[in-house]
Formats: sequence, structure tokens, C-alpha cells
Amino acid sequence: MRRLFSDELNDLHARFSEMGMMVNEAIFDSVKAFVNHDKALAHSVIDNDYHINRREVDLEKRSFEMIALQQPVTSDLRMIVTVMKASSDLERMGDHAVSIAKSTIRVKGETRVPEIEKVIAQMAAAVKEMVEQVLDAYVKEDAEAARQIAEEDHGINDFSSQIYSLCIDEMTRDADTIVGSMDYMLVSSYLERIGDYVTNICEWILYLKTGKLLELNSNAKEDGF
Amino acid sequence: MRRLFSDELNDLHARFSEMGMMVNEAIFDSVKAFVNHDKALAHSVIDNDYHINRREVDLEKRSFEMIALQQPVTSDLRMIVTVMKASSDLERMGDHAVSIAKSTIRVKGETRVPEIEKVIAQMAAAVKEMVEQVLDAYVKEDAEAARQIAEEDHGINDFSSQIYSLCIDEMTRDADTIVGSMDYMLVSSYLERIGDYVTNICEWILYLKTGKLLELNSNAKEDGF
Repeated sequence: MRRLFSDELNDLHARFSEMGMMVNEAIFDSVKAFVNHDKALAHSVIDNDYHINRREVDLEKRSFEMIALQQPVTSDLRMIVTVMKASSDLERMGDHAVSIAKSTIRVKGETRVPEIEKVIAQMAAAVKEMVEQVLDAYVKEDAEAARQIAEEDHGINDFSSQIYSLCIDEMTRDADTIVGSMDYMLVSSYLERIGDYVTNICEWILYLKTGKLLELNSNAKEDGF
Repeated sequence: MRRLFSDELNDLHARFSEMGMMVNEAIFDSVKAFVNHDKALAHSVIDNDYHINRREVDLEKRSFEMIALQQPVTSDLRMIVTVMKASSDLERMGDHAVSIAKSTIRVKGETRVPEIEKVIAQMAAAVKEMVEQVLDAYVKEDAEAARQIAEEDHGINDFSSQIYSLCIDEMTRDADTIVGSMDYMLVSSYLERIGDYVTNICEWILYLKTGKLLELNSNAKEDGF
């Protein structure tokens, strides 16, 4: 029985990590589509979100059944609860990728600002790295890495502030960039939110290791603008 | 033993509902502060968020211990898992109230647009009603109400679209309103996000009743702009 249970637990972890990679790809593709004005890619991000949502449902169901049927010991229970919690965060990160994809589709060829798009691409690269790091820290149950990754969220918020200032300057200088700049602001706010979800997952990793729920960056959160 | 457990479960529900009311108050106060330019009230929203966060930690701890120590039957387990999940949503709704409060503090007396502020106040009133309804539906475990409340999120997204258009018009007409309009957009995006979290809680109520995780409004989500 215990052997079977540990197999199930490994399987749960593997499926969670896989979901993380699906979400990371969605984020990467959504920003690529936005920066390259690639509506076909944006549509594929929206279509693929279905699979991310199904994976959350699958993880939820498996986790619940493992708890209900196998009554795991405390340390195992904590792992399962972590998957339940963190998979919701991943799913919502996927929703934000969809929002970015929708911004791409909505764009109607208004004046664009390459300088701001460059910063958005940098911000997206930083977010992508955070997502990859947090998935790695999760697999390794590395609490120290989780703390460090959460710290990186400050850098994401700095990108937000930078994009905010650039948009204000640009809109003031040239009214033709107003519609486009609003989109830049929204995309930047979605990326910032993804960074917040990564911080949440960092909190779950600490929870897994310590059994304590700590709020990392509680004052830094949402501080981008 | 069962009697004790049912007491604990009732206590858990009561504490969750109480958390919901704390969050509802935070949202209400944050928008009130924003519309009335009341920085003192905005500061109190930020300070009170500490108590919301502590309550989530408390619910998390109690839920976990109930599962670990009492090994509840499936239906009770589902209730506890729902509290664990939905309390995270409430906590993040509180974070968005903090974001709105921070927008209020950031405001530096730039030109304001009463017409847009009026729509924001209407949007906030609609969100507040949704939050109250979802807390009520949760207490009554009313799946039908949960479905209807999730439908109301379309109305919230319509407010977002309306605010978006008004901001674009206003910024194009008068560059002095650009900084203020960006804030309007952000506050509207926070309120929209709170509506999404209410929809998540609706999903947990359905989960509680049916054992199935359904995504309500999956295509409608994030559709505001």
C-alpha cells in the first residue's frame, strides 16, 4: 500500500511539473505573439488554455482521492495540499497568458512604440526565468531558492514602473499612441500578476518544507506602479 | 468525536464567512477612499490587510489539522478543501483592495474626471453586491445562486469596457487627464480581477455540491477590454 501511494505521489508531482511547463510555454508564446503581432500564435495560446484547465481539474481530482482514500501521513498530506494550492496558481497564470493573447488579437494596427515593446520583452524574459526557477525549486523542494525567487519579483515590479513611466511619456508626447500604450500597460499588469503568482508558489514551497504559511513580499506586492 | 468534529467544521465556516466580510469591507473602503481622495482611509485598508492575511493562515492551519488528525469522510473533506481553496481567493481579493488603496495614496492631485469616477463607483457597488451574494451562497451551499452570481461577472466586464473607452476618449481630448486615467484603468482592472475571484468562489461552491471542478465563464474571463 505505501509503495503504491509513493508511486501516486511521484506521479502527482510529475503531472504538476508538466502543468508548469505548459503554463510557461503559454506565457512565453503569448508575449512572443504580442511583440511580433502574431495573431495566429495568440489564438493557439487561447486554444491551449483548455488543456491547462483540464490538467488542474485532473490534479484536483487525484489529490482529493489520495487524501480521501489513503489518509496520508502529515508530511505526505502537506505535499498533496501544496499541489492542490499551487495548481490553482498555475491555472491562473495560464489565464493571464490568455489575457495577453487577447490583447494581441484586439490590436487594430494603431501606432506602436518599439522602445516600450523592448522593455515588455525584457520583462517577459525575466518572468519566464522566474517561472522556470520556481518549477525547479518545487521539484527540489528548495526553500532557500524559493525565498530568492520571491525576491526577484521586485525586479518584475521595477519593469512595471518603467513601462508605466514610458507609457505616460509617450501618450503625452503623441496622442496616437494612447490606445497602444493602454495595451502595453495592461500586458505589463498581466506579467506583474504572473510574478505575484510565482511568489505564491514560492510560499507553497516554504510551506511544504516548514509547514508554515508565510507571506513573502507582502508589502512589495502590487507595488509596481 | 463526530460531535466535536462537526463543531470544528461549523467554526471553520463561521471564520471563513467572517474573513469574507473583512475582505468585502476592505474592497468597499478602498474604492470609497479612491473616489473621495481619502488617503487616511486608504492607509487603514493597507493596515487592515494584515488581519486578512492572518485569517487565511489561521484557516489554512485549522483545515490542515482537521484533515490530518480527524481523517474526515469524503463530504466533510470536500468542505474543508473548499475552505482551503476559497480562503486563498479571499486573501487575494484583499490584496487587490490594497492595490486600489495604493492608487489613492499615489494620486498627486492631477486633473480628475468625475464622469469616470462615477462609473468606477457603480462598478465597485456591483462588485460589492457580488461579494455579498457569493458569501451568502457559500453559507447556504446554494449551487444555483453560485451559477447566477458567476453570470453577473459579465456585467463587471462591461463596466471595464466602458471605463476603458471613457479613459481613451478623455486622454485623447485632454492630455492633462492621462496620469489620472491610467489610475482609473488600473483601479478598474483590480475590480475586474476581484470579480474573477468571486467567480472562482462560485466554482468552489459548485465543487462543494457536485464534487466537480467546473470553469464558469472560462471564455468570458478577462474579456473586459
